[in-house]
Amino acid sequence: MSSTFGTLFRVSTFGESHGPGVGVLVDGVPPGITIDVADIQRELDRRRPGQSAITTQRKEADQVEIVSGVFEGVTLGTPIMMLVRNGDQRSKDYDALKEVFRPGHADYAYQEKYGVRDHRGGGRSSGRETVGRVAAGALAKAALAGVGVSIVGGTVRVGALQAHRRDWDVVESNAIRCPDAEAAAAFIALIERTRDALDSIGGVVEIVARGVPAGWGDPTMQKLDAQLGAAMLSIPATKGVEIGGGFAMCERNGSQTNDVFDGERYTSNFSGGIAGGISNSADIVVRVAVRPATSIGKPQVMAKKGGGTEVVAIEGRHDPCICPRVVPVAEAMMAITLADAWLRQRALRGREK
Amino acid sequence: MSSTFGTLFRVSTFGESHGPGVGVLVDGVPPGITIDVADIQRELDRRRPGQSAITTQRKEADQVEIVSGVFEGVTLGTPIMMLVRNGDQRSKDYDALKEVFRPGHADYAYQEKYGVRDHRGGGRSSGRETVGRVAAGALAKAALAGVGVSIVGGTVRVGALQAHRRDWDVVESNAIRCPDAEAAAAFIALIERTRDALDSIGGVVEIVARGVPAGWGDPTMQKLDAQLGAAMLSIPATKGVEIGGGFAMCERNGSQTNDVFDGERYTSNFSGGIAGGISNSADIVVRVAVRPATSIGKPQVMAKKGGGTEVVAIEGRHDPCICPRVVPVAEAMMAITLADAWLRQRALRGREK
Amino acid sequence: MSSTFGTLFRVSTFGESHGPGVGVLVDGVPPGITIDVADIQRELDRRRPGQSAITTQRKEADQVEIVSGVFEGVTLGTPIMMLVRNGDQRSKDYDALKEVFRPGHADYAYQEKYGVRDHRGGGRSSGRETVGRVAAGALAKAALAGVGVSIVGGTVRVGALQAHRRDWDVVESNAIRCPDAEAAAAFIALIERTRDALDSIGGVVEIVARGVPAGWGDPTMQKLDAQLGAAMLSIPATKGVEIGGGFAMCERNGSQTNDVFDGERYTSNFSGGIAGGISNSADIVVRVAVRPATSIGKPQVMAKKGGGTEVVAIEGRHDPCICPRVVPVAEAMMAITLADAWLRQRALRGREK
Amino acid sequence: MSSTFGTLFRVSTFGESHGPGVGVLVDGVPPGITIDVADIQRELDRRRPGQSAITTQRKEADQVEIVSGVFEGVTLGTPIMMLVRNGDQRSKDYDALKEVFRPGHADYAYQEKYGVRDHRGGGRSSGRETVGRVAAGALAKAALAGVGVSIVGGTVRVGALQAHRRDWDVVESNAIRCPDAEAAAAFIALIERTRDALDSIGGVVEIVARGVPAGWGDPTMQKLDAQLGAAMLSIPATKGVEIGGGFAMCERNGSQTNDVFDGERYTSNFSGGIAGGISNSADIVVRVAVRPATSIGKPQVMAKKGGGTEVVAIEGRHDPCICPRVVPVAEAMMAITLADAWLRQRALRGREK
Repeated sequence: MSSTFGTLFRVSTFGESHGPGVGVLVDGVPPGITIDVADIQRELDRRRPGQSAITTQRKEADQVEIVSGVFEGVTLGTPIMMLVRNGDQRSKDYDALKEVFRPGHADYAYQEKYGVRDHRGGGRSSGRETVGRVAAGALAKAALAGVGVSIVGGTVRVGALQAHRRDWDVVESNAIRCPDAEAAAAFIALIERTRDALDSIGGVVEIVARGVPAGWGDPTMQKLDAQLGAAMLSIPATKGVEIGGGFAMCERNGSQTNDVFDGERYTSNFSGGIAGGISNSADIVVRVAVRPATSIGKPQVMAKKGGGTEVVAIEGRHDPCICPRVVPVAEAMMAITLADAWLRQRALRGREK
Repeated sequence: MSSTFGTLFRVSTFGESHGPGVGVLVDGVPPGITIDVADIQRELDRRRPGQSAITTQRKEADQVEIVSGVFEGVTLGTPIMMLVRNGDQRSKDYDALKEVFRPGHADYAYQEKYGVRDHRGGGRSSGRETVGRVAAGALAKAALAGVGVSIVGGTVRVGALQAHRRDWDVVESNAIRCPDAEAAAAFIALIERTRDALDSIGGVVEIVARGVPAGWGDPTMQKLDAQLGAAMLSIPATKGVEIGGGFAMCERNGSQTNDVFDGERYTSNFSGGIAGGISNSADIVVRVAVRPATSIGKPQVMAKKGGGTEVVAIEGRHDPCICPRVVPVAEAMMAITLADAWLRQRALRGREK
Repeated sequence: MSSTFGTLFRVSTFGESHGPGVGVLVDGVPPGITIDVADIQRELDRRRPGQSAITTQRKEADQVEIVSGVFEGVTLGTPIMMLVRNGDQRSKDYDALKEVFRPGHADYAYQEKYGVRDHRGGGRSSGRETVGRVAAGALAKAALAGVGVSIVGGTVRVGALQAHRRDWDVVESNAIRCPDAEAAAAFIALIERTRDALDSIGGVVEIVARGVPAGWGDPTMQKLDAQLGAAMLSIPATKGVEIGGGFAMCERNGSQTNDVFDGERYTSNFSGGIAGGISNSADIVVRVAVRPATSIGKPQVMAKKGGGTEVVAIEGRHDPCICPRVVPVAEAMMAITLADAWLRQRALRGREK
Repeated sequence: MSSTFGTLFRVSTFGESHGPGVGVLVDGVPPGITIDVADIQRELDRRRPGQSAITTQRKEADQVEIVSGVFEGVTLGTPIMMLVRNGDQRSKDYDALKEVFRPGHADYAYQEKYGVRDHRGGGRSSGRETVGRVAAGALAKAALAGVGVSIVGGTVRVGALQAHRRDWDVVESNAIRCPDAEAAAAFIALIERTRDALDSIGGVVEIVARGVPAGWGDPTMQKLDAQLGAAMLSIPATKGVEIGGGFAMCERNGSQTNDVFDGERYTSNFSGGIAGGISNSADIVVRVAVRPATSIGKPQVMAKKGGGTEVVAIEGRHDPCICPRVVPVAEAMMAITLADAWLRQRALRGREK
């Protein structure tokens, strides 16, 4: 199941960065859902390079084609395959990298795993793989909208700087996708300095799902926390995930973090909307640690395939901070995870939610 | 797949806290592995209540029986079922809780999900479910030992206190299972104060796998990070997980966190032993955020099943800090995840590792 | 998934013939279904040895214990584990068979697959493994009854003799479980002659599901035909399966076998209730080819583990025709398959059927 | 998992008959296998319409494109997506069928299952879905060839006529793909008469795998018989499957059908190469019952969507006997099933076979 996520709403991506194309096969989408290809394209546009001065300047049109599963604008209940052709392939940029393993990248691990690899642009390990996730996420969002669930997300930390507000409406108004307009300016300034130093910087992305009724998710081995954790940590460059109170809760006492409930509302949300692995009707809140992008312009020491090391500067166009491009991917993975939980609960109880 | 973890090394737990028993079915264990039931029992003893003054004083013998899949001390390659009978069931303690939803607990979410629940001791949501995980983990550890992989773990933070050393040999010498003997004493003192206040406190558990060769794990949707993240977040009371540099790495630059590799060794381990979702031969390092135990002695406001709230004090014997009991469970989940990755890689390449 | 059947209604059996016990873990049973352990026991009694003069005379009480997932007689929605302790283990009977591979049996294949085996009574390859299937099938039948689906079955052929009627009410009145009382007498006489010759004989079992609405099952790779075919061919000693018109339909023309439908009823049922892999509201009709039992009293040539052959007579108590004991197992597998299809359809459409 | 087959060698088809295209996603193909696109195309050419006077005269070029997972002619170990664009879409032919349910077809079942359908050419229920299976099967055949396994197949029965020989070399020399040249002529004559009567006729296809070592497949729930049975019954228009002796074995005694083994060879093959669900080193022999094609030119009574019936003749170009086109599909499904079993055994034992 190496390239598949989900049990009932199953998303399988395919494609190498510099091959003919990338895309996704989504099986299990219920029939009768209205799909507007423009909605899918808009999500892809949020993910693609070249959106702003603080993202890589590579040009990728990322035009999506729906090849199957949708007829006259409505899902058939059959597998939906969506394809994005690759373009602007400056494969030559990568010739120098054929015989070295870039630090922080998956080059060496791939070589050891498979014994063979497509070195051009990272091949399958490229961030381009997330194109398929975002397209699938757009379907999941459309499906969830039908049962009153919506998803928002943004960058809430860059380096040591934090966002202090959650104005989700302003997210698309700034290049870093921060829900705090004031913090956004500071984030961007820091990223520009980092970019000018040919370096990269990390951050934290927060995703929130609203309108999830109590009862979605499974207890024990497939807790909703676990599914969301897997979803987030399957995104390239993520190295941490927390739900609700997360790591900070470790310093508290149970009498503080047990969210008091009156049968309708919670006075706090340390559980992040999930109790015992099952949604509890509060907002589902997830934060993801995004490491500094491993692709940087600075010269670095690299191991050579045949042994020894050399110092190489990676040509190409890099993202100084990938958080703004992780946001739509993380939203997509949240949507896919919840769509799966929704269908599992329908199977269990035989009713809409 | 609600109670199953893993694709090839598949672990399915069963059992309610106050039903006849709890246990686990493990399918996919390779044949020919020598199993000593005493090794399984030792792991269960590390998990069970009543081990020390800082764990709950409930008495549970937790004697394991291997019902299938092992013949003359050797695995047959067939499903291994292990059963632990429940005992010391003071179900009456829970009568008062039949009609209320405890804050922080899964009571309300279960009720909404299933429409019916076994309220006694949390039923399926009880920490007793982890008995099966630990038994399965002992099998996974035995299997991994055969290919040179070992797993250690301990409590590295309680409240605001941190461990500064990683002397894994001292872990079993102190009640909190801390790899820093000095910090352990401070951890324990804090926990005792918390216990006396009828409250609980959180912490962080760290698990390390040594000897994993490069090439285990999958890229994209089933990254080893994602699998380990799911494994950890499936453990009761966990609300965060990080790999290698984790959240702290967000404040760094890529030129600092790209682990330099000379073809044999890494000068740092910000990746936590996993690059692009695949093991890179460095130690695999995972940290888990453990929330303060939701079961506390202090009176709390609880929602009533029929509406309204009341203040109730939960009778029973509680853990003031569950970190020392999470350690063997988290080790087990790490072992199960890696055993699965090992078999997947064998399938892919057709050789021992 | 070697010992698991089903996607949402998941049945995993465990246990060796002469180990401590056999049983089953059933995950995905919806909550709120009333379960009477007597119903499960009655199904197990239909499967067990020693029921009549034409079944093996081994004595196995096969008393079932529900260990988890049922509380106060109602399913919780959590995993249901059911255990049957082994008894009457005349393991000594099998000592002579430790070093030989019985013809027709799985002995050699197991040895080559696993490199190790529990030779006593066939170990995992024993028909005792079906105990767990029958117990799980009883749960599936209870679940299906709630949506109006019922399952009947019987032996419709032994040797060259055929049943000409389908009086399902008489099935439990004769030892061979034939729905044609007249044919039953002939079947039994033939089996008795075979038994007296220390030999065995094959037959055909037919299973019918009534009340399945149109729309269950999946098209393409997971057609309901395919699922039922797998279910039946997973039963020991089966070597063929056909649906509706089956093999005999090959001799017909499409103008004869295209079941004419008026929107409510079909004038024929060559499709066996399944069109394009999806139920079409007609009765689902499946027939299973049961080979002559491989365990016979006659001396046979057997390959020796170290090379060469010898002639050995297998001590023990054998079934001259296993059809009557296959009937409850095949019914169980039909029920399990349909319960899974039911839940999958609920997930797809979000309503009861 | 509705459109997916396999656990480790996973094949997922997609596409509607008259949509933009059909194809397949194959995940789990081991890295390092040399793939010649011409080999895939040759298999597709064996499946496509218009090959001979006894197949439908529709023109479909069925040109395959490998979109991912293959680099410089070698598999990468990453998902392989193969796409075939649809052409020659005479969708207008189907306008008359929008409001009726064709007898024997899946039209009504689809409508009830999904509530919406692409009526053009059967949409997803069209035989065109098998394009993806054949492409995936070509990969599986290439993988299996590397471990010495080869697969042959042919039509062995049409109507009441039987093939008496198994000259697999002559299969591609006659239009019906019969391994008995003499029988082939009779088969073809019968089919031509049937075609001229605007009708269709059924038959039996036999598939044989040679070189499978002992030990592949699983016991109990996932027996190799069960997997192959599911594989075959997932092919459109199949309504029966048998392994080795199959249904005819019912008339025999165990003393006749227990294949005698001397440690190297079997004197008979009633088991069809599988004992206890596991390969036993003999040839694997499977026969599939193919019903008369449901698409016929004769006028037929059809149920109308709004109620009532009418007599309609289906325009279009039909196959009078689909056996010759089922042969490559059934070979593909056999190859896919065995490739999966091969990888599962590698996972279990950690060695090539």
